Amino acid sequence: MIYDLTVTQFIKTLKNLDSFLEKAAGFADSKKFEVDVLLQSRLAPDQFNFIRQVQIACDTAKLGASRLTGKPAPTQEDNEKTLSEVKARIQSVIAYLESFKPEDYKNAGNAVITQPRWEGKTLTGNEYVIHHMIPNLYFHVTTAYSILRHNGVDVGKKDFLGAMPYKLP
Amino acid sequence: MIYDLTVTQFIKTLKNLDSFLEKAAGFADSKKFEVDVLLQSRLAPDQFNFIRQVQIACDTAKLGASRLTGKPAPTQEDNEKTLSEVKARIQSVIAYLESFKPEDYKNAGNAVITQPRWEGKTLTGNEYVIHHMIPNLYFHVTTAYSILRHNGVDVGKKDFLGAMPYKLP
Repeated sequence: MIYDLTVTQFIKTLKNLDSFLEKAAGFADSKKFEVDVLLQSRLAPDQFNFIRQVQIACDTAKLGASRLTGKPAPTQEDNEKTLSEVKARIQSVIAYLESFKPEDYKNAGNAVITQPRWEGKTLTGNEYVIHHMIPNLYFHVTTAYSILRHNGVDVGKKDFLGAMPYKLP
Repeated sequence: MIYDLTVTQFIKTLKNLDSFLEKAAGFADSKKFEVDVLLQSRLAPDQFNFIRQVQIACDTAKLGASRLTGKPAPTQEDNEKTLSEVKARIQSVIAYLESFKPEDYKNAGNAVITQPRWEGKTLTGNEYVIHHMIPNLYFHVTTAYSILRHNGVDVGKKDFLGAMPYKLP
């Protein structure tokens, strides 16, 4: 289930995030302003801007997969400035996630997870997924969404949730 | 794992949401305005206000648990207006979630989930949890957070994520 929650579903969510960027670009075009204004926007003066929200969402997915499986993640310099660079960052993480198979996650729930910031403290893989990766990913994708929504971009919850795998009656 | 993801973790997240309300009340007091202003706020004119965000987060948790287990959920009238009413709504859902045990979820992943709005279409319990319940819960809690953050309330990501179950080295 960790694979479904943090690989398949995160790929879907990052594609949804990419679709917000398409809508942001279209809105900027229609209003004749530079889309960079939206990329630099934030909801509070001491909050990270849109680009940083995307970078953290991407790192949550990428570093999480790496920590859960032990497979090294590509490094990135966090220097994206333009729409196409931000979209490329999202695509690179999607490509990395697509390199995993469900069997790569067979020991993930019991993996011992740590990171420099935790000063030696640890979580199990299951705890890390439930308490950190999932809420953090959705937090930053929703915040990116909210920055656009607040500035008039026509994004809605369907864009955020994406398509449902419904079975017909 | 569905129990951990949507009962234990949702209880924690709803308690975090309640803590935002405490901070909102403190901020309103310190600035000498009515906290109702924050409860009625939104980030865009066609977005649901703070109270409605909380109501939907609560219903996502409550109705999800009911659909996954078959246990009837308490009905609520969506008529909360004051801070104490909003807090009571959150507490009522926490109490409902606390009434479940892990064994109530043993068939939840394979349950057939539907709701009137889906016009006969269905999801499995696993699909419903991954594609709908989890992203929807975090979407509305993050949006509620963002409405407060945008209006100057001193909430931060630690308030959103809450305490981590770290094991010491």
